[in-house]
Amino acid sequence: IETKLPKVGTTIFSVMSHLAVQHKAVNLGQGFPDFEPPQALRDALGRAMANGLNQYAPGIGTAALREQIALKTERLYAREVSPDTDVTVTSGATEALFAAIAAVVRAGEEVIVFDPAYDSYEPAIDLQGARTIHIPLTVPSFSIDWQRVRDAITPRTRMILINSPHNPSGAVLSSADLDELAAIVRDTSIVVLSDEVYEHIVYDGMAHQSVLRHPELAARSIVVSSFGKTYHCTGWKVGYAVAPPKLSAEFRKVHQYLTFCTFHPAQAAFAEFLASTPEHYLELPAFYQAKRDRFRNLLAPSRLKLLDVPGGYFQLVDYSAIRDEDDQAFCEWLVKEGGVAAIPLTPFYEKAPGTRLARLCFAKSDATMQAAAERLCRL
Amino acid sequence: IETKLPKVGTTIFSVMSHLAVQHKAVNLGQGFPDFEPPQALRDALGRAMANGLNQYAPGIGTAALREQIALKTERLYAREVSPDTDVTVTSGATEALFAAIAAVVRAGEEVIVFDPAYDSYEPAIDLQGARTIHIPLTVPSFSIDWQRVRDAITPRTRMILINSPHNPSGAVLSSADLDELAAIVRDTSIVVLSDEVYEHIVYDGMAHQSVLRHPELAARSIVVSSFGKTYHCTGWKVGYAVAPPKLSAEFRKVHQYLTFCTFHPAQAAFAEFLASTPEHYLELPAFYQAKRDRFRNLLAPSRLKLLDVPGGYFQLVDYSAIRDEDDQAFCEWLVKEGGVAAIPLTPFYEKAPGTRLARLCFAKSDATMQAAAERLCRL
Ligand SMILES: CSCCC(=O)C(=O)O
Ligand SMILES: CSCCC(=O)C(=O)O
Repeated sequence: IETKLPKVGTTIFSVMSHLAVQHKAVNLGQGFPDFEPPQALRDALGRAMANGLNQYAPGIGTAALREQIALKTERLYAREVSPDTDVTVTSGATEALFAAIAAVVRAGEEVIVFDPAYDSYEPAIDLQGARTIHIPLTVPSFSIDWQRVRDAITPRTRMILINSPHNPSGAVLSSADLDELAAIVRDTSIVVLSDEVYEHIVYDGMAHQSVLRHPELAARSIVVSSFGKTYHCTGWKVGYAVAPPKLSAEFRKVHQYLTFCTFHPAQAAFAEFLASTPEHYLELPAFYQAKRDRFRNLLAPSRLKLLDVPGGYFQLVDYSAIRDEDDQAFCEWLVKEGGVAAIPLTPFYEKAPGTRLARLCFAKSDATMQAAAERLCRL
Repeated sequence: IETKLPKVGTTIFSVMSHLAVQHKAVNLGQGFPDFEPPQALRDALGRAMANGLNQYAPGIGTAALREQIALKTERLYAREVSPDTDVTVTSGATEALFAAIAAVVRAGEEVIVFDPAYDSYEPAIDLQGARTIHIPLTVPSFSIDWQRVRDAITPRTRMILINSPHNPSGAVLSSADLDELAAIVRDTSIVVLSDEVYEHIVYDGMAHQSVLRHPELAARSIVVSSFGKTYHCTGWKVGYAVAPPKLSAEFRKVHQYLTFCTFHPAQAAFAEFLASTPEHYLELPAFYQAKRDRFRNLLAPSRLKLLDVPGGYFQLVDYSAIRDEDDQAFCEWLVKEGGVAAIPLTPFYEKAPGTRLARLCFAKSDATMQAAAERLCRL
């Protein structure tokens, strides 16, 4: 059998997590916290199992969870959405991204993504027989050059995929960026797919500019988020998509045949926890900002140059003072010889960027950060 | 936005479960037990959460769970498979079916399915730009006429999708059927996709003829199963695919971008439960056979004609003595006026079959069966 995805190997996250175990490295590669979800959330999941919520959930998600997502959207982004027609629960943000692309994009059409781009976007586009148009972000700010976007639009452009806070750089879009995007898609039939899984992790007093805050864009967008990053449970795989009714209807058609529904007890647990503890996600910026600042202080004596981190839980570092080699070679050397797993940026690019940058995850306990920093400062 | 799936509405399962609630009907429609998964399994899931298994699982599934699946495959089907290269854990059988189809089938190719066919098959095929070739099963045995299959093969045939025990009929394939299939696909590049989610529910002393028992077929097949039907937890959404290394490699490429990984604590729980309690699934045929026989006895006084049920947990009934109308009209009438939700067969067919059959789920407690039977005997 000939492969349908010739460019795809095993994701860099799996590869690096595997190498980290093999070389007993401190794993700052794949993005996951090494601390636990709130005890109350785990208790709520246990209660849901005990209370008999072990059979199929409604395919679109439980009413209680969709209601909480709608309430949060209104509270944070001043946008009213209907739990019945606009919100769909998925088995993680990855499923939501795939379903959105599969529902909207057809063979022969084009989707604009910004490099570095999360590695699931392009294979999902490829599987539709569509073409991925890569526009590199401007380094080192990782901002979008909107003129390049205007130049890339063709009659075949079906979707623009944005991601803020951005993985791997942490860059955040401003409301001016959203206005630029709105002006570009106005009077076209382009759908915006907005990956906002780090929506609650934005620093230095800034507010996350969700597409949901922007009425004109929101009317033509599918906004994807997830509870994994917010509640320290990346392995629970509950995400969701918010979109206007017509887009949601198409999204749901695909979703119902991708996974049908999502692990039921976790949906009940999130609904309960969101209702009783909305302050949790409000405290998240301060929680992660303290981690970011601690990590940066620990790395200050190293020969790594630290890029700014406006959002997310990744620190990009410029390693050019340490080794003169591409990022994949550096990360391989680092996990084997330096005892720290990082993620190179090249797998997120169509064309190797030639930068000397690697990504380190700081969603880690003090002890893990300390252990990693000791090794990194020795380089 | 124009739909990519013009034929698709909301699945009949969601529609009927919704109507059941609305009309306070006894729900024998969507296939799920109204009893609980084993307490030890729920306890194991709670322990996994407490023990910190809350972050991403390996994308292909935890090593422990893949190992247990491989052991079971060897024990039950005398087939050695490698947990490393042949077994992939998915977010339910639905995801596994979609991933298998997306990994193998290309635009312009053909997939043979047997009607009545589970409703997720065709949309998944449609989304590849491929064509579904429907071959009706022979009623009332719901057996395959292999001559029709031979006649349907073309140079574009890429996959044949089989399902045994069969949903909705409960029909099971014999080893002679598998030999017929093997002869047809021999010397072609056709891949077999075998949906075996009811593998442990086969009656009257028969053995499930898994494709995995058939070395020639197994070498070119993707076999899909799930824990939902086996452990009374359809809402936990853990399934898996077993396939030879090359097919698994393609399957995994798609899977990693569909959901990346599956709810981690449940994987740990299933691994522990399978290791400690292999007798559970061995007792399943007797457990469900008692339910089947009880249900059939309860319905004996009714005017419904009961078809044979060799496997699975659905009873097909011929309602022609009660009402002379098509199955969708009958099921609508039944949920509203009769107080019982059933599933019509027409949504599983390309062309309405004209039969007078409805599907009733008997994975139910005595009380539920009793309540449903009282209503059904009144018709
Ligand atoms: C799905 S594994 C990758 C997790 C993640 O989002 C990242 O590390 O970037
Ligand atoms: C995924 S909902 C449908 C459940 C089921 O397999 C059935 O009722 O046939």
